[in-house]
Amino acid sequence: MQFHLDGYRPGDPAVSRADEALPPPVTERPLPANVDVLVVGCGPTGLTLAAQLAAFPEISVAIADLKSGPLQVGQADGIAVRSMEMFNAFGFAQRIQREAYWVNETVFWRPDPDDPKRIRRSDRIQDVEDGLSEFPHVILNQARVHDHFLETMRNSPSGLTPHYSRRLAGLDLPVDPDDPAVARFERIGSDREPRVGADGKPEIEEVRARYVIGCDGARSSVRKQMGRILRGDATNKAWGVMDVFAVTDFPDIRFKSIVHSANEGGLIVIPREGGYMFRLYIELDKLDADERVADRNITVDYLIAAGQRILAPYTLDMKEVAWWSVYEIGQRLTDRFDDVGLDIHGSDTEVADDRLPRVFIAGDACHTHSPKAGQGMNVSMRDSFNLGWKLAAVLRGQARPELLHTYTAERQGLARELIDFDRELATMFSAPTKTGDPTDDDDAVDPAEFQRYFQQHGRFTAGTATKYQPSMIVGEPVHQHLATGFEVGTRFHSARVVRLADAKPVHLGHTVTADGRWRLFVFADAVAPDDPDSRFAAMCRWLANDPHSPVARHTPPDAAIDSVFDVRGVIQQSHAEVTIDRLPPILRPTKGRLGLVDYEKVFCPDFTEPGAGGRDIFDQRGVDRHAGALVVVRPDQHVADVVPLDGGRRLTEFFDRFMIPVT
Amino acid sequence: MQFHLDGYRPGDPAVSRADEALPPPVTERPLPANVDVLVVGCGPTGLTLAAQLAAFPEISVAIADLKSGPLQVGQADGIAVRSMEMFNAFGFAQRIQREAYWVNETVFWRPDPDDPKRIRRSDRIQDVEDGLSEFPHVILNQARVHDHFLETMRNSPSGLTPHYSRRLAGLDLPVDPDDPAVARFERIGSDREPRVGADGKPEIEEVRARYVIGCDGARSSVRKQMGRILRGDATNKAWGVMDVFAVTDFPDIRFKSIVHSANEGGLIVIPREGGYMFRLYIELDKLDADERVADRNITVDYLIAAGQRILAPYTLDMKEVAWWSVYEIGQRLTDRFDDVGLDIHGSDTEVADDRLPRVFIAGDACHTHSPKAGQGMNVSMRDSFNLGWKLAAVLRGQARPELLHTYTAERQGLARELIDFDRELATMFSAPTKTGDPTDDDDAVDPAEFQRYFQQHGRFTAGTATKYQPSMIVGEPVHQHLATGFEVGTRFHSARVVRLADAKPVHLGHTVTADGRWRLFVFADAVAPDDPDSRFAAMCRWLANDPHSPVARHTPPDAAIDSVFDVRGVIQQSHAEVTIDRLPPILRPTKGRLGLVDYEKVFCPDFTEPGAGGRDIFDQRGVDRHAGALVVVRPDQHVADVVPLDGGRRLTEFFDRFMIPVT
Repeated sequence: MQFHLDGYRPGDPAVSRADEALPPPVTERPLPANVDVLVVGCGPTGLTLAAQLAAFPEISVAIADLKSGPLQVGQADGIAVRSMEMFNAFGFAQRIQREAYWVNETVFWRPDPDDPKRIRRSDRIQDVEDGLSEFPHVILNQARVHDHFLETMRNSPSGLTPHYSRRLAGLDLPVDPDDPAVARFERIGSDREPRVGADGKPEIEEVRARYVIGCDGARSSVRKQMGRILRGDATNKAWGVMDVFAVTDFPDIRFKSIVHSANEGGLIVIPREGGYMFRLYIELDKLDADERVADRNITVDYLIAAGQRILAPYTLDMKEVAWWSVYEIGQRLTDRFDDVGLDIHGSDTEVADDRLPRVFIAGDACHTHSPKAGQGMNVSMRDSFNLGWKLAAVLRGQARPELLHTYTAERQGLARELIDFDRELATMFSAPTKTGDPTDDDDAVDPAEFQRYFQQHGRFTAGTATKYQPSMIVGEPVHQHLATGFEVGTRFHSARVVRLADAKPVHLGHTVTADGRWRLFVFADAVAPDDPDSRFAAMCRWLANDPHSPVARHTPPDAAIDSVFDVRGVIQQSHAEVTIDRLPPILRPTKGRLGLVDYEKVFCPDFTEPGAGGRDIFDQRGVDRHAGALVVVRPDQHVADVVPLDGGRRLTEFFDRFMIPVT
Repeated sequence: MQFHLDGYRPGDPAVSRADEALPPPVTERPLPANVDVLVVGCGPTGLTLAAQLAAFPEISVAIADLKSGPLQVGQADGIAVRSMEMFNAFGFAQRIQREAYWVNETVFWRPDPDDPKRIRRSDRIQDVEDGLSEFPHVILNQARVHDHFLETMRNSPSGLTPHYSRRLAGLDLPVDPDDPAVARFERIGSDREPRVGADGKPEIEEVRARYVIGCDGARSSVRKQMGRILRGDATNKAWGVMDVFAVTDFPDIRFKSIVHSANEGGLIVIPREGGYMFRLYIELDKLDADERVADRNITVDYLIAAGQRILAPYTLDMKEVAWWSVYEIGQRLTDRFDDVGLDIHGSDTEVADDRLPRVFIAGDACHTHSPKAGQGMNVSMRDSFNLGWKLAAVLRGQARPELLHTYTAERQGLARELIDFDRELATMFSAPTKTGDPTDDDDAVDPAEFQRYFQQHGRFTAGTATKYQPSMIVGEPVHQHLATGFEVGTRFHSARVVRLADAKPVHLGHTVTADGRWRLFVFADAVAPDDPDSRFAAMCRWLANDPHSPVARHTPPDAAIDSVFDVRGVIQQSHAEVTIDRLPPILRPTKGRLGLVDYEKVFCPDFTEPGAGGRDIFDQRGVDRHAGALVVVRPDQHVADVVPLDGGRRLTEFFDRFMIPVT
């Protein structure tokens, strides 16, 4: 898709008229007085959470933001492949993929050794390694990501929409954990000043909420109200960022380009959606401790001139700047992502605490990164994707509230790893360039070394390296050998299969949608799956019929058999060799008002997946063809366990750790 | 996507709440008094035309329909690959692909030779041959196709929406061809009775239109007003059709299944979108001449019972019927698809006539088919896709009105071919089944023979066999040897390429969107494309600079250089070997208010297209690697000519036949 030829216009580029391209205006209405979940902040973190919770009409949710309406310009733009996988669970990855710029290669430019005042291309690398994901790494204005989440919310059973122009003014956490938290919001005007009512007093709204989630950014009010502190770098690094329309003879302007000049610093070119706009991240000096970037009075002309110097000898003829900003950012982190262990009276001293969490923070509210690895928005959205299903399971009575402890355990540890990675990358980026001259600074970095580091850590930046440690919801990987490519703790790595009932090639991972259900993928053993003596058939029978099976223990009697656990089979035969009516009934369940058969539970090998070299899912993911395997996948797409086909007892025990039996 | 579990619901399945899933209600407003184009009928034919014309804000269009709002249920459902290619030009193929059922295989069932009262599966065939198109053959409710066209119209610069509840009551064609046609519409109520105004008289609206297009179905009022007659079969074949929710042990219920029973007739199973609904087409007896199917008083219970008998020994436990109909259809055709050669006073005698056409008919208004080959909706949409760009070119002053003669020449001939194909297929389907018994009826058909015929004619049903004959807009294929796989007269058969500027793998054919532009694909010769002595560079220079080039002759001076002819290059080097700044300027044109560079005009080979066996576009499509070639593609995606790279004169002459020079 090509668009923005005549300059930037917010909203859906498929809609010609500007006024209709934006999300529909939201009617002004009061905040609800009582909700199950209060989300503070309409950035990507808050919207991911709200979109997830909106799938469950029995959960009441409010989401409030300072801003007077949806974001229209600027902010983050990189979407890692792991985030695309998550978007797919919400149903809009394909539309993002169509509209976005695809990062196919990253190119590196550094000083020309023969004439260090000029830059020249030193290398080009494939951006995402083959087979890492079925989705590309893409670039798209954060505002469009918001638009898709807002649409998902509008399309949900509850038709959830945000409450804008609200500032969190206070948050009371009562001592009795059964009492709700009380959040006080000021209505504010477009000038962000408090709005005054007819009585001359500021308009205040109170919301009582079982859970409050602060997705309100690096200056999070929720965090401050809780009393948590972002700890980390004392000094900040300043960056300039511009979304621009310009004419240049720099030949790689449509590639992600990492440019190091000899003496003028570095920049990153991020080509943008639509084919004409691009973003420049321009490195500025390190700020002194306690210095704010605003003190430097940096102008857009300053940024343009810096860009021109770095890109020399190439020209940069600026036509229009759609958005620009100068910002400071350091690597910072809070100790926990919830209110457990905090002195409830506001000091930042950790106290011994067996309370259950009631307030959470996610995204920039609890960890900040430099922009270089494109982590900010991506990690933040995945924070709340991790939290959303857990909150839903507790609020829907499926899981015990202790499950909520796993949020901070899983995400705080990950954030720490990412910050270390980011700090190292940022340091290397900003270090002086090694020239081979013996008088070089000791800190000087060979750009080739930076490039190797960047490439090696591709899985980190892609978001697929995330691995949760064993916990109440992640098994010890004692049976990992049965399915080596579905690594316990990591996200389920999809592969293509053919659906038995209609021979459609599909991605197995795309059955894991953001509906709060667990998936149990039963990979068949060597015996034919329609043979009742196969381990495959025996496991399916156990799941369907045994009173100890998690399906029996945790599925409400009046709910569809797949409403909590979605059992799906992967067999080793082709669709022409087996008919579905011979397979275990749990793989062709009868559902709904009319008692219809769900035919989409069983899959066959696909030997034609592009790039897979003729290997099917068993070979691609190291699934034991003799013994088979059962792969347990969490609602957030992470592999929770690999279990042998006779491992029913392990399954019973696993789910008993945190789920509530229905009988 | 799975949906309709609890029964059929119209509208977008991604939207949870029923009232918001439908297209927005259209405000009642009067028909405009004067338009360039009046489209009568809001079926797929009329909507394709309206969506195409809506791309041009300078053309005024009205589209009117008898119905009181958008279609919600029933009607056609098969979408051929060629139609998907066309949908891609409108930008919604991917969304259709996501929501629809995919016809991957067709299975055949016939009487079991050992027990002819039972059916058994005789064979399964791949539905679409490998490499025929990058799109699948899919099944989706026609109403959803309408929804997408309606959205395309709403999203267009003019925000075009239909006028519902209008019945065409009269159409006057003045003798002076410069005078507009005058259409009179009655406002009707939801009972389809004329609405009476405050003065007690029927409410009548008059629309003056330069062109009137009847897309109003087999009982077309426009056709009747013109005085054309559908000619063809005297007797009609009756069919029953049902969209149902049922439980069955027929194992292929999620495959397109063509079932011949020994004595109970035949049926076709069409699995439907969402995973639960399916359609049954049930063959009924042939009607007597002049008999109407309504005379038979066929009930839904009759159809269900017939389906059950044909499927024996399999059960069919009907839960709910979402829609059903009994209809009669024959193969019929009008002599022309416009008003040329008609006695203007209403007799059906052809008269010698050099008039230019002002009234056209398209779709079922001029040709009807049986449902078996899934031709109706598909051929009809492509009628108006053929007509739309021609009308736009004439109305925008780009082409002479004689261009409009090619509509009936191209589409009436094609409809005749399709009707012959359809008649043969229908006869074979309905003939008694050959059992091998010597007392068999002479007309008996071996189901295996039907199956072979069906398979052989896959390209016909896919819509890719359509080939327009040489005419003012299709060249004699004298240079076909330069690009054997881009057959002149057929649709441009896309292949994958890699975009030079950003290394993105894309389909070359997807650059041909429904924007009325001609594409000139310049395939490079053996000399490097950045060598000014290459024939590739020479052709690009000629196109950009020579006063005889069609670009120079037909592009308005104040318009973008690619606004009439979109010149794109395909080179033989990889994106790492060539930089775009060294290529001819017409391949990196400067455009728009800001004078920005369009970087998306040049493509490189892609040796990794799935299913292409490591061959790039040159090898896949037989493009001469030594000489290169220029492939001219019409706005409706058909190849108009293949021209040598030194064939500028041929290009000049070709476009001079029908285009108007700007100077």
